Amino acid sequence: MKLYVSERAPNPRRVQMFIAAKGITGITEVLVDINAHEHRQAEFLARNPMARIPILELDDGRCLSESRAICSYLEGLYPEPNLMGRDADERAFIEMHDRHVEWYLTLPLAQAIRHQHPGLAVLEQPQFPEFGASQQAKAMDSVRWLDGVLQRQPWVAGERFTIADITAFCTIEFARLLKFKPGEQGFGALQAWRDRVAAQVP
Amino acid sequence: MKLYVSERAPNPRRVQMFIAAKGITGITEVLVDINAHEHRQAEFLARNPMARIPILELDDGRCLSESRAICSYLEGLYPEPNLMGRDADERAFIEMHDRHVEWYLTLPLAQAIRHQHPGLAVLEQPQFPEFGASQQAKAMDSVRWLDGVLQRQPWVAGERFTIADITAFCTIEFARLLKFKPGEQGFGALQAWRDRVAAQVP
Repeated sequence: MKLYVSERAPNPRRVQMFIAAKGITGITEVLVDINAHEHRQAEFLARNPMARIPILELDDGRCLSESRAICSYLEGLYPEPNLMGRDADERAFIEMHDRHVEWYLTLPLAQAIRHQHPGLAVLEQPQFPEFGASQQAKAMDSVRWLDGVLQRQPWVAGERFTIADITAFCTIEFARLLKFKPGEQGFGALQAWRDRVAAQVP
Repeated sequence: MKLYVSERAPNPRRVQMFIAAKGITGITEVLVDINAHEHRQAEFLARNPMARIPILELDDGRCLSESRAICSYLEGLYPEPNLMGRDADERAFIEMHDRHVEWYLTLPLAQAIRHQHPGLAVLEQPQFPEFGASQQAKAMDSVRWLDGVLQRQPWVAGERFTIADITAFCTIEFARLLKFKPGEQGFGALQAWRDRVAAQVP
């Protein structure tokens, strides 16, 4: 299998961390240069018409896009350690937590960065800086929510490490582009959890 | 089980259509008045701190939010007709198609409506109409993409009706707020599919 990735983007990192947490070996990484618009060229679009990274190319030639769908596929091939739920009940609740992070933290934060950061102007045209600032405020509300969650429980979805921790970790690390560091901004539980995740994944 | 819903919003409709397509009976609907901000009151926030609808309240008192996570739970309880994939391979590819719709059609369309429609000012503050217009253009790109997909295959994920059709159907119906009707705007395959979905779900 081949995994198409790009540097510094949070979505491919999500899949890379998932692979590392599973201890999966043997997947070849192919680096795509987004700044050179390689993801908009015909060869890439044939693999993913949505022009997004990452993509997992299977050995039978089929291409799977969307980070979370790639993780679902790999979870099926490599069930242990379980990161997405052992039955439909647990799968649904982990999906809920993962989506809370995706939609209420990752999305506003990504929009804050894409609409405000000069380095992202190559990807987001036109940028709307005032909209970006409003999204940054929403992302900070979600940071407060997540810090509160992690004051009550060790991991985002509860008592064990799951894909929701990977999603949240990649988001918080991406927030460094806005000079956000949880510990320095009073979010002690979030910082302690961030350090636990970094220690958890090789 | 109880399902908390609101009128006219696309997300609760997604779950309601999923339930109808499965032929599930016996779930009690509870109507939440978003315009009166009932979803921001303490009783509701105890069920979903993200203040979003729908929520499925289980008989054991646990509350599950996020439309797609609720569908995953119901798929486990009521496996037939299968709408989300029979094994991990199929589940991953259906998830990919469902997310393509969610992130590249539903999201920009919802932002176009929330940031431009006067009736949504109660939910989206501040509104950024120019950002909304840019998202409407992106949503129309995705409409063209989806119409192309449906020229080649009968359903969004391929040869059979799945959750991805429900997600796309609720999105296209929501687009009526922008006076969008596929058939009148030259998207014949999308209109024919929309009518097939309406006939598919009782």
